Amino acid sequence: MIAAVHIGATPLGLVLSVMSAERERVVVVGGGFGGLQAVRKLRRAPVDITLIDRRNFHLFQPLVYQVATGALSSGEIASPLRSIFKRNENVRVLLGEVTGFDLAERRVLLDRLPNGGEGLAVPYDSLIVAGGSSYSYFGHEDWRPFAPDVKSLESALEVRRRILTAFEAAEVEQDPARRTVWLTFVVVGAGPTGVELAGQIAEIARDTLHRDFRTIDTRAARIVLVEMADRVLPLFPPGLSARAARALEKLGVTPLVERTVVGIDQHSVTVATAEGETERLPARTVVWAAGVIASELATALAAESGSELDRAGRIAVGPDLTLPGHPEVIALGDMVQVRDTDGNAVPLPGLAPVAMQQGRYAARAVNDRLRGKEPPPFRYRDKGNLATIGRAKAVADIKGFQLSGLLAWLTWLFVHLFYLIGLQNRLLVFIRWTFSFVTRGRGSRLITGRPTRAE
Amino acid sequence: MIAAVHIGATPLGLVLSVMSAERERVVVVGGGFGGLQAVRKLRRAPVDITLIDRRNFHLFQPLVYQVATGALSSGEIASPLRSIFKRNENVRVLLGEVTGFDLAERRVLLDRLPNGGEGLAVPYDSLIVAGGSSYSYFGHEDWRPFAPDVKSLESALEVRRRILTAFEAAEVEQDPARRTVWLTFVVVGAGPTGVELAGQIAEIARDTLHRDFRTIDTRAARIVLVEMADRVLPLFPPGLSARAARALEKLGVTPLVERTVVGIDQHSVTVATAEGETERLPARTVVWAAGVIASELATALAAESGSELDRAGRIAVGPDLTLPGHPEVIALGDMVQVRDTDGNAVPLPGLAPVAMQQGRYAARAVNDRLRGKEPPPFRYRDKGNLATIGRAKAVADIKGFQLSGLLAWLTWLFVHLFYLIGLQNRLLVFIRWTFSFVTRGRGSRLITGRPTRAE
Repeated sequence: MIAAVHIGATPLGLVLSVMSAERERVVVVGGGFGGLQAVRKLRRAPVDITLIDRRNFHLFQPLVYQVATGALSSGEIASPLRSIFKRNENVRVLLGEVTGFDLAERRVLLDRLPNGGEGLAVPYDSLIVAGGSSYSYFGHEDWRPFAPDVKSLESALEVRRRILTAFEAAEVEQDPARRTVWLTFVVVGAGPTGVELAGQIAEIARDTLHRDFRTIDTRAARIVLVEMADRVLPLFPPGLSARAARALEKLGVTPLVERTVVGIDQHSVTVATAEGETERLPARTVVWAAGVIASELATALAAESGSELDRAGRIAVGPDLTLPGHPEVIALGDMVQVRDTDGNAVPLPGLAPVAMQQGRYAARAVNDRLRGKEPPPFRYRDKGNLATIGRAKAVADIKGFQLSGLLAWLTWLFVHLFYLIGLQNRLLVFIRWTFSFVTRGRGSRLITGRPTRAE
Repeated sequence: MIAAVHIGATPLGLVLSVMSAERERVVVVGGGFGGLQAVRKLRRAPVDITLIDRRNFHLFQPLVYQVATGALSSGEIASPLRSIFKRNENVRVLLGEVTGFDLAERRVLLDRLPNGGEGLAVPYDSLIVAGGSSYSYFGHEDWRPFAPDVKSLESALEVRRRILTAFEAAEVEQDPARRTVWLTFVVVGAGPTGVELAGQIAEIARDTLHRDFRTIDTRAARIVLVEMADRVLPLFPPGLSARAARALEKLGVTPLVERTVVGIDQHSVTVATAEGETERLPARTVVWAAGVIASELATALAAESGSELDRAGRIAVGPDLTLPGHPEVIALGDMVQVRDTDGNAVPLPGLAPVAMQQGRYAARAVNDRLRGKEPPPFRYRDKGNLATIGRAKAVADIKGFQLSGLLAWLTWLFVHLFYLIGLQNRLLVFIRWTFSFVTRGRGSRLITGRPTRAE
């Protein structure tokens, strides 16, 4: 089904021509929420789809932090892309790293193939790019080793290793001052991920590990949640932020708002107020959940198309999510900034529902164009905003209704189980959560992997 | 509860005196099957127990290979040691690497503590050492990078990465010869682990991945199982070995018996017959499951006690599992060779049931000695031997009854679920197995971690 064409002395060794040449060739880059929805919605259309990702699985991003806290095991929130589309003969999955785009020749340039091969070019008739985003560290990549994020499974497992090792270290630490530093945890960024993570660390210290140790009292652990804005969950209505802050404080989390991180090293985080006053927080375990920067694919697309990038590295796309001058190229999700017909930025949050709706829209747009129709502009339907804080505690802002407490928490549980891929993962996560709720335990608190922190 | 005593200018910075000094201090080294049973059986006795392990979890070793095949997620077969004993105030868990023993002063020497500390000495009145074993690579440690084992979670995840990446590599490989090499898998060692692993790889190729790829036919994969003895499962009766071999062949596994591995590199395994004829098997994915060597703790104990080590590095212990001249020190499991009163070796297989029975025996022996009784010699009750080959296929040798097929497989399932620690893990594994059985899928086939193989 694949014909390889050697193209002379170009650095690209091969051109991959995918399946039958008569059908529209759609290439989707990225198997996250946006890309997955695009492929799902397109798979019954008369098109040949190639889904390209660096990883062989779709990761349920909103629950990665629960791997970091040992609440879930990594396999339970990831689904192999191939198995999702195994019954769709017109969907092909290709592992590799997209290094660039040749918009003139309509080819996606790939590298680092699983067989060690380099330089593959995948031709397309329609292209959907959904590269997502990563944490920015405010340009301080040197902080990353001291403050891993909870974006990938690998970094979540590293965070889990650090959190659990910190309690173990405190248990054998003879010096009381150093013990306190081992028992101090700093989470940077009080968006939903930061809030949920801080709440879970507090619950681990207070409930899960309380009877596990013989020397330390894990309840003495200090969890600090640093946020640049003037409140936690700044994207929520102020009333819900206040409720979330109270719930966090009750759990033992200290929110520290209006503070910018200005330094991180192996033993501390330094924060500064708007007035420039700095404070050094001694802590051995720091987790990063702040500052989002668009995927480098936005830069690659911009270089080819002449589109603008905003400060978060996002590429500007039109109301129909296409690149200016390239109706055959759609970009979506965290890596784009949608502009209306007047060129004004349409504010959209960097959330999974936005990417999912845009993915489905992209599929419809490709289908419309195949039939000679012009798609209507993308419109985001805000279905609400959810964040959980701890056991039976959450906040929800659903079309103006503000919920908190048990009802919000049950909504959160239901929504997350619903959007997980596959019945098996839903069942496994449901069992984990049930046990965590009943026993206050975290079943998967393993210290694995090799230490990457100098201790 | 812990008093630290600085002992002058010795390299050991600290002596840890555990809990009340009046009660018998029992130190158990190793949280595997043997150590865990010893602590479980002793925890209601009037003793203070310190359980020392490098890892913070008990690993259910017989199922680690299922993590390597993506059938299970790593958290599902591991249980945090602290949570197992959280309700036992007299049990203390200590993470660290045992570097040696001071039998004269009755202290266990520890290093690599979680806080980065070095040199801790843990005093004991009774000592139980259950260090287990690892794969030997027949002395060829240089083969390890090319042929990881399935002993630890980390190496199992590396094997999983290699198996799955091999299929991905074959999918994009244009050269038919190289594609064949990517689709060749060699498992070294046809004991239960090797047989089960080879069978699972065959099932993955034949059933699980069959519809996942668009270019390759995964059913063309070749799985070779290399064994030094003259049959697979050499510890089973010959009739069951023959049945296992037939079942393997039906699945597409080629057993290659009476072959010794004489070389492994990045692209091949070289095997030799007894006559010295060599054959090179081109393969990109090799998994090691042969040759067992005792934990280095056996060497450390031998150095102190003058006990003998056998060729597998195991230390000789008496009929009551104690070191000669040290009735207060018991060693057990894969790291010991039991000698009868005449000094003859008692042949015992290197299986979990042996370690578990010895662990329980050790607890009883400590208890007996506390009450001034002399324990009877250890006697192994052979409850049988099980190995699964694939879907509804297994062999069982239970007190002379030889089973194969569905009944043996159900026995295998039941026994493994029964011995898993904790209701939660049992439920999770049961769900995984049910889904695998019904869908022929492997839910956790994720390629994670960084490549350690040059590709």
